[in-house]
Amino acid sequence: MLGICPDATLVDIAHDVPAHDVPAGALELAACYRYFPRGTIFLVVVDPGVGSSRRGIAAETAEYKFVAPDNGVLSAVFRESPPKKVVELTERKYALPTVSRTFEGRDRFAPAAAYLAKGIALVALGKSISNYHVIDLPAPAVGEHELTGEIVRVDRFGNLITNIDRRTFEQFAAARSIAIDIGGRDIPRIVATYAEAPPGELCALFGSTDHLEVAINAGDAAAYLGLGRGAPVSVRIVK
Amino acid sequence: MLGICPDATLVDIAHDVPAHDVPAGALELAACYRYFPRGTIFLVVVDPGVGSSRRGIAAETAEYKFVAPDNGVLSAVFRESPPKKVVELTERKYALPTVSRTFEGRDRFAPAAAYLAKGIALVALGKSISNYHVIDLPAPAVGEHELTGEIVRVDRFGNLITNIDRRTFEQFAAARSIAIDIGGRDIPRIVATYAEAPPGELCALFGSTDHLEVAINAGDAAAYLGLGRGAPVSVRIVK
Amino acid sequence: MLGICPDATLVDIAHDVPAHDVPAGALELAACYRYFPRGTIFLVVVDPGVGSSRRGIAAETAEYKFVAPDNGVLSAVFRESPPKKVVELTERKYALPTVSRTFEGRDRFAPAAAYLAKGIALVALGKSISNYHVIDLPAPAVGEHELTGEIVRVDRFGNLITNIDRRTFEQFAAARSIAIDIGGRDIPRIVATYAEAPPGELCALFGSTDHLEVAINAGDAAAYLGLGRGAPVSVRIVK
Repeated sequence: MLGICPDATLVDIAHDVPAHDVPAGALELAACYRYFPRGTIFLVVVDPGVGSSRRGIAAETAEYKFVAPDNGVLSAVFRESPPKKVVELTERKYALPTVSRTFEGRDRFAPAAAYLAKGIALVALGKSISNYHVIDLPAPAVGEHELTGEIVRVDRFGNLITNIDRRTFEQFAAARSIAIDIGGRDIPRIVATYAEAPPGELCALFGSTDHLEVAINAGDAAAYLGLGRGAPVSVRIVK
Repeated sequence: MLGICPDATLVDIAHDVPAHDVPAGALELAACYRYFPRGTIFLVVVDPGVGSSRRGIAAETAEYKFVAPDNGVLSAVFRESPPKKVVELTERKYALPTVSRTFEGRDRFAPAAAYLAKGIALVALGKSISNYHVIDLPAPAVGEHELTGEIVRVDRFGNLITNIDRRTFEQFAAARSIAIDIGGRDIPRIVATYAEAPPGELCALFGSTDHLEVAINAGDAAAYLGLGRGAPVSVRIVK
Repeated sequence: MLGICPDATLVDIAHDVPAHDVPAGALELAACYRYFPRGTIFLVVVDPGVGSSRRGIAAETAEYKFVAPDNGVLSAVFRESPPKKVVELTERKYALPTVSRTFEGRDRFAPAAAYLAKGIALVALGKSISNYHVIDLPAPAVGEHELTGEIVRVDRFGNLITNIDRRTFEQFAAARSIAIDIGGRDIPRIVATYAEAPPGELCALFGSTDHLEVAINAGDAAAYLGLGRGAPVSVRIVK
């Protein structure tokens, strides 16, 4: 990339998304992209895995550009920031001369991102498409007496991050008393920070992306509960 | 940070300090900060954990600036380089508009570091304080016939680094023969490099920070001895 | 390094080469160096381990410069790109004033690389040598009915990369049908991409460095087979 655009500033976001886990990559990206300067180009490579399309895409939203495989890894970003344009990476002159079938991240996606950084227009990279792949990301279900969601991300401290955002929660709770159930455990209230809970005790709070999160002050909630992505979480109104 | 100061040069020092381990973070920082150019701004985030103050601070020593939570993570640096000024991060305009209670590293500390990089004066970030938090870092104890210390850091090769610096050691040993005891094992002498010891054998040497270190040539002393931070080390005079 | 050459662009290639594993470091470097811009300076530090020479070297090939311990870690690069000049790092003014015997990467190799980045000539770093250390890297053996090689690298997805390059393979196979044997398992054919194999099934393909590789689509072949570096691989002609 520096060979194509020597002035590019490279920032590593994450190298620890689990292999082949497209939803995890999609949510990691959605958790951080808004904190980067307007105009940032995101190069996102999570191997598409079984049966996925091998094509690459580049996309433009109001503030950012993205290069990725067409496997849905941009779905969480697109839900918040609909793309203005998506192209398929078909223009061979913006890839390396020889493209390895097993490492398109190096030979096709990275050069495309570097050419965008150099100022090449998105449309120069290939033909516009509208049938790019979108994956379903789990949404919380709001009932009269119960709000149900699930764990969608586990951070490196073992905090369990749900898909229940603060606004959905507040509309449901409407100032009533609630209790949170996860893995058969009951959490009676929501704290403002980890440190408000006694050490070693389960707590719930709105975390860094303003989603409900189950944590242990100075501990690892994922290991303690033996839970991970997909585990159900329920918020109930308490009489 | 690049949104605030586009010209900043970002260097990752470490992302593997154990979660919530403030003394480990303090010693990692002390082991490397002097190798950075004068004027470097260090952004240090180790979650303060149980009961700690949540406030953030910025500090200035003769050569460097630091931004960190006020949990003592700068204590090892301050022992060597007393701060000329410490301020509390109270000025809201140098933080993000919305500060997450659970991710101040992103919303308050990182922007403050970026504004310092941009040239904002330390005193603009908040009011001067002198009651910043300092943690006790273990010091070696010098007796007539025994010098005792402890393991304070384990590097990624499993080398066990003690708090016994070369000067304290040399004043104690005073050219007499010594033996080192750790975990019930006896180490008869100090070598100059790992490779001087036979492969697989425990050895002691002065490592990269000029502190006494217990190692195995091409091996992992921490795993072999089953020891970690806090384990006692004793140096005795041998008749 | 930024203290010596403030304009240097630093890129991390890898921090996960197994400790003391010089052949692994040599092959990791050979797998990627050609993708960096002409003129790139590579700083390569793998601890030389038992009995190795402690001296440091700097080398120049047609397109790149390298700084490393003289333990053979540049052997795989030199096999492809013979060095035009190799010098021993003897000039003290291009090292830090105090050189730790246990961390020459920091005190001698990194400064030398930074001075090269600043424009200092290779020959200024020390006297030319021709007796630098080269390690034997395993080569495939071509027989009439069998081509044998071995696993030389395991990537982070558990793909098992052999020392059998595409050209050697094609000259041997010469359009005849082949079968691949690894760990007592038979792989009947070579696919073009991981996704061509059914999920969970062993497959063989030419990977990102154009060497034969044994993989599992969306799985970890190293864990599944219980094999790692050094494991034999055999390609046989099938009647």
